[in-house]
Amino acid sequence: MARIIVVGGAQMKAEPYEGRVPLVRRMIEMMREAKACGCDIIVYPELALSPFFVLEWVDDLDEVKHFYEKEMPGPETRPLFEEAAKLEIGFYLGYAEYVECSNKAKRYNTSILVDKNAEIVGKYRKVHLPGHADYKKDMPYQGLEKYYFDVGDLGFGVWRSMGGVMGMCICNDRRWAETYRVMGLKGVELIMVGYNTPNSMPWDTTFDQLTYFHNHLVMQAGAYQNSTFVAGVARVGKTGECDLIGGSAIIAPSGEIIACASSKEDELIIGRCDLDLAQKYKQSMFNFEEHRRIEHYGIITEQIGATAP
Amino acid sequence: MARIIVVGGAQMKAEPYEGRVPLVRRMIEMMREAKACGCDIIVYPELALSPFFVLEWVDDLDEVKHFYEKEMPGPETRPLFEEAAKLEIGFYLGYAEYVECSNKAKRYNTSILVDKNAEIVGKYRKVHLPGHADYKKDMPYQGLEKYYFDVGDLGFGVWRSMGGVMGMCICNDRRWAETYRVMGLKGVELIMVGYNTPNSMPWDTTFDQLTYFHNHLVMQAGAYQNSTFVAGVARVGKTGECDLIGGSAIIAPSGEIIACASSKEDELIIGRCDLDLAQKYKQSMFNFEEHRRIEHYGIITEQIGATAP
Repeated sequence: MARIIVVGGAQMKAEPYEGRVPLVRRMIEMMREAKACGCDIIVYPELALSPFFVLEWVDDLDEVKHFYEKEMPGPETRPLFEEAAKLEIGFYLGYAEYVECSNKAKRYNTSILVDKNAEIVGKYRKVHLPGHADYKKDMPYQGLEKYYFDVGDLGFGVWRSMGGVMGMCICNDRRWAETYRVMGLKGVELIMVGYNTPNSMPWDTTFDQLTYFHNHLVMQAGAYQNSTFVAGVARVGKTGECDLIGGSAIIAPSGEIIACASSKEDELIIGRCDLDLAQKYKQSMFNFEEHRRIEHYGIITEQIGATAP
Repeated sequence: MARIIVVGGAQMKAEPYEGRVPLVRRMIEMMREAKACGCDIIVYPELALSPFFVLEWVDDLDEVKHFYEKEMPGPETRPLFEEAAKLEIGFYLGYAEYVECSNKAKRYNTSILVDKNAEIVGKYRKVHLPGHADYKKDMPYQGLEKYYFDVGDLGFGVWRSMGGVMGMCICNDRRWAETYRVMGLKGVELIMVGYNTPNSMPWDTTFDQLTYFHNHLVMQAGAYQNSTFVAGVARVGKTGECDLIGGSAIIAPSGEIIACASSKEDELIIGRCDLDLAQKYKQSMFNFEEHRRIEHYGIITEQIGATAP
């Protein structure tokens, strides 16, 4: 028996940033294309509704408050939900989220999982914020996620939806083995991840040529070691001084890349995912119950930083 | 500044199994070759002193007791230590270990780290035993590590030796992200891992063609995500009905393979490892102190098996 879900990845060009309304129109076009290709769900990038504003410093966070969503859907994003309901297609969407909690402003780098009835069934807030919180002089651009966002407070959830167990994470989360393992322990079968990844990290350019390789390496290992599909979708191309990598990819539980973008443009990638395959290793090589040895893992949750012997 | 350690990997053919004395002679030959190539340390495979006896069932564990080492070094292995002292070269050696604890027999799949003075500075006992503990009918060969060995009781240690922070694991350990992370949290700079990996897993042949790919994938991801060198060394070729993969490799903290075997024979691979490179990511992308979020990792150490939502 096979449990097929056809996953579309909507790689999207970063520039020109045209504002929410034209952007949502572009997303709807890609959604229709995905539906025409038989997709059950379409994955959009991280922070898909705003520019990648973490690259620049502002003195007052209110200067960028218009980039955050206060409601989802709001007036400008509702057409995306309406189209999804009409087409009966699910989606993953990343965006900047603003909420007030006990009169305190909270800002998250967020993604939602929306099912084929256009119902929001899951929400995730980015846990692994990369970069820094302070202004770095002499860098061609900043990496200010720790300034613009609070650390996600929802953990790594999974949701039974569209015939499988769905999980989400965002960008830098994919580099951390814990991200996949927490969802793996909850039986995840498809992890969706949007990303904006600068080809060059100004604070250490040693490995710039490897950025594209690392993108795939971590998703392939996470998929294999947890026997899950992974769909990683990029926002690409120049944004100010920064060049974002592409390489959007859908990866099987074997670690194999089954679909991959070959442009740095708007590009739909399509993966036919048999979720039953995700059970293969879960029942043998990566049968956690039989093989994991938590008595030797304690330091992973006891200790944050590394200590030398 | 660079902290160079030249690492040799002694990939060794499994058959014919000629017994300890000729085998140690072969290992000494490879050690001399490694020394001539400037190696500071040579890594031998898992269970290097015995056949890969876990492939066959015996009714009584005593039938294979001659494959376990009761002392290290013993009379037949001492020449290896003597040669190492003479050449001033360190080594990693995997072997089956037999010990008695309060009159109870314990059997471990063990490795040791021996420094340039031929002193044993570290010992590791395999934690992630793959396969099964019972006889499986109708399989061309067995995978009886859970029958022949007890789960290692020493955890994943690291040792400051030969100018760096050294770690060890064995074979199937390398597929588990926790293995690398525990050592990563202890500041590891070089992880050594011997392996015997059947090309085909009889209990699930679905992914046989990917065995070689998976071998590299997990070591590359483990190296990158923890900013450490990894030296993986195989025992290769036919052993009974089973064919063991090669692919011995030395991997940089960038995840790049810097040395790789290209035969399924005895073959020395050589990696010039600048341990200072291992500090590069530890201080930026994978600065654990700045980026890890243990408040969201709890399930990793609380729960052994996977549960669906």
